[in-house]
Amino acid sequence: MDESELIRRFFSSLGARRSDVSLGIGDDAAVLAVSPGCELVMTTDALVEGVHFLPGAPPRSLGHRALAVNLSDIAAMGASPSWMLLSLILPQAQEAWLAEFCAGLAPLAERHAVALVGGNLSRGPLSITVELAGLVPAGRALRRQGARPGDALYVSGTPGDAAAGRLLVQYPTARSNTPATQRADRTALMARFEYPTARVALGEGLRSLASACIDVSDGLAVDARRMLAASGCAAQIDAALLPLSQSLQAFTDQAGWSVEQTLRLALCGGEDYELCFCAAPERESALHALAATLGERVTRIGAVTAGAGVSVTWSNSDAPQLLEQSMFDHFGR
Amino acid sequence: MDESELIRRFFSSLGARRSDVSLGIGDDAAVLAVSPGCELVMTTDALVEGVHFLPGAPPRSLGHRALAVNLSDIAAMGASPSWMLLSLILPQAQEAWLAEFCAGLAPLAERHAVALVGGNLSRGPLSITVELAGLVPAGRALRRQGARPGDALYVSGTPGDAAAGRLLVQYPTARSNTPATQRADRTALMARFEYPTARVALGEGLRSLASACIDVSDGLAVDARRMLAASGCAAQIDAALLPLSQSLQAFTDQAGWSVEQTLRLALCGGEDYELCFCAAPERESALHALAATLGERVTRIGAVTAGAGVSVTWSNSDAPQLLEQSMFDHFGR
Repeated sequence: MDESELIRRFFSSLGARRSDVSLGIGDDAAVLAVSPGCELVMTTDALVEGVHFLPGAPPRSLGHRALAVNLSDIAAMGASPSWMLLSLILPQAQEAWLAEFCAGLAPLAERHAVALVGGNLSRGPLSITVELAGLVPAGRALRRQGARPGDALYVSGTPGDAAAGRLLVQYPTARSNTPATQRADRTALMARFEYPTARVALGEGLRSLASACIDVSDGLAVDARRMLAASGCAAQIDAALLPLSQSLQAFTDQAGWSVEQTLRLALCGGEDYELCFCAAPERESALHALAATLGERVTRIGAVTAGAGVSVTWSNSDAPQLLEQSMFDHFGR
Repeated sequence: MDESELIRRFFSSLGARRSDVSLGIGDDAAVLAVSPGCELVMTTDALVEGVHFLPGAPPRSLGHRALAVNLSDIAAMGASPSWMLLSLILPQAQEAWLAEFCAGLAPLAERHAVALVGGNLSRGPLSITVELAGLVPAGRALRRQGARPGDALYVSGTPGDAAAGRLLVQYPTARSNTPATQRADRTALMARFEYPTARVALGEGLRSLASACIDVSDGLAVDARRMLAASGCAAQIDAALLPLSQSLQAFTDQAGWSVEQTLRLALCGGEDYELCFCAAPERESALHALAATLGERVTRIGAVTAGAGVSVTWSNSDAPQLLEQSMFDHFGR
C-alpha cells in the first residue's frame, strides 16, 4: 500500500468535520477560514520512540498522546483547537498499528472538534509530530506573562498521577502480583500517563479569570517557575495543599514512600498536562464556579509574591525551600 | 546546553520579523494575526535521514531544503508564506551542526518574509519537520482541481536538474576526475538538488492566470498526473518541448545518455520543486509577461484534453505513450 492509499484509508476523514476547512487533505496544502475577530494560535510537539515512549508502546496510546500534548498547549493559551497536521515517520506501514493509532487519535480529535487537514508519511525511525492550530478572540490569549504579586497560584487535576503511571509502565514488575484493589489504582495511574486529559474547556474559561497560565508537561514546579519567570514574579507553594489522587496515595503508601516523597512526585514528576495558572484573589469564587460547571478540579497551591524563583514549604514547621534546577533533574525519570 | 538555551541561541530570532506575530517563540504556543480577507494555508513536510538525505549530508543544505520543500507547497497554492514551526529531532546537540543548519534556513526564511514562531527539539534519529503557514486572499487559492480541456500545460524552471544533482551527490565517483567545465555543470546540478528554489512569487502571480497548479516533488509526470486526476482531465506532454538546462544536457551528453534518457529524467526525476500548472490559451502572453517580470522561466509542455491520464509524445513520428505508475518507480532513485 503506497502513501496515498494509506492516507486515503486511515487519515482522509479523521477527526471533526468543520465548515471552516475550505480545502482539507489531498492538495499541496490545506486552506482554512479564520473567523473574523480571532487570532490564530499554533503549536507543535513530537513523540519520539525511546525518548517519549518505549519501543512497543501501544499505538492507541500514542495516537491519543500525540494530540493531547498539543491540545494542552492550546488549552494553556485559552484557545479553542481547530485544525491539525500529522507528520508520521514509521519504520514500516503496518495496517494493524495504524488502525490502533487512529483509534487513539480520532475520538480525541472529534471530542475537541479538531479536523485533520494535512500531513505526511515517511519511512524511518518511529516518531509522531502533530502541529495543532487553534483560535482565540483577538488580544485575549493567555500567556505565561501576566501574574502579579498577590495572585493565587492554582493547578488543575491531581499532579503526580502521570509520573507514577510512567513508572508503572516502565517497570512492569511493579504492577504484577498485586491484589485487585491495588491493580485498579495502578491501572488508573497508567491511564493518566498513556491517555492524558488536556484541560481545553478549562483553558477557555480561564481567559476571563487567569492572569497567567502554562501547561504542566515537564513538572508542576519547573513549569510554574517558567510562568513566574516570564511574569517577573516569585511564588511560594505550600506542599500540603497539593491535590493528591486516592490512587497515587494508595500506590505510594503500598510502596512505602514517605509523604514528602509523594509530594515531590506531584511537584516534579511531569507529563501531567494539567494547567498551572495564577489569578487575583477576588476571582476565587468565580474560578470554583467554573471548575464545578466543567466537572474539573482546581486547587489553590500557593501565592505569587514579588521577587524571583519558586519556593516550597514542605510542612508548617519548615522554612520555605527554593527550588533549584538540580532538583528537577533527579526525580524518577 | 539544554533545550531552552539551544532555542535561545539558535532559533529565538531566526527568520523575518513580522508585525502580525502577536506572540512568537517562548510561550506554550504562538499567537498570530491573520489579515482580514485572507484565508490561512497550512502544510508540513519532513526530511528524514536515510530517506530524504544521506547520513552526513551538509546541514546547511538540510536547513535550506527543509523550508524550501514547504515553501514550494505554499507556492503551489498561490499563497504568501508567513509563519513556520520547526520540529527538529537530533541524535545530539552539536553546536557546529546547528549553526550550519541555521545558516541554510535563516536566509531563505528572511528572503520569503517567514518568521519562525515555534517548534521543539527532541533527541533521536535525525529528522527535520517544518510546518509552514501562509496567507491567500479568501477564495483565491490555486488548487490541483480546475484544469479544463483546451488549457495549456506548463512547467517552471528546468526539470531534471535536481534528479541529476541527486545522482551526483549519491555517487561521488561520478563527479571526480572531470575537467573544470564539466565540474561547473555538476556543481550547478548538485546545487539544484541541495538548494532548491521554491517559486513563491510565481505562484502568487499565477493566482490570476492558472486554472490548476501543483508543485513538482515526486516528478513532473507523476505530479502532472495528480493535478489532472484532481481536475478530471487528461493531458498530452510533448517531450520535445521539455526545457532542459545546459548543465543537464552537458552532463548527460558526457555520460553517454540518449536524448530520450535525458528527457525521461526531466519527466520522472523528482525533487524539482518547480510549479506545474494549467492555463487557458488566452493567458499565454500574460504568463510570459509575468515570467519575464520575475526572471522566471515558464515553458508550455503540452495540452489538457478530455479523458484521464497523462501521455507523452517522445518524437514527431511516435504515437503518444500513456504514462503508467510503473514507469515512475524505475527511474534512478
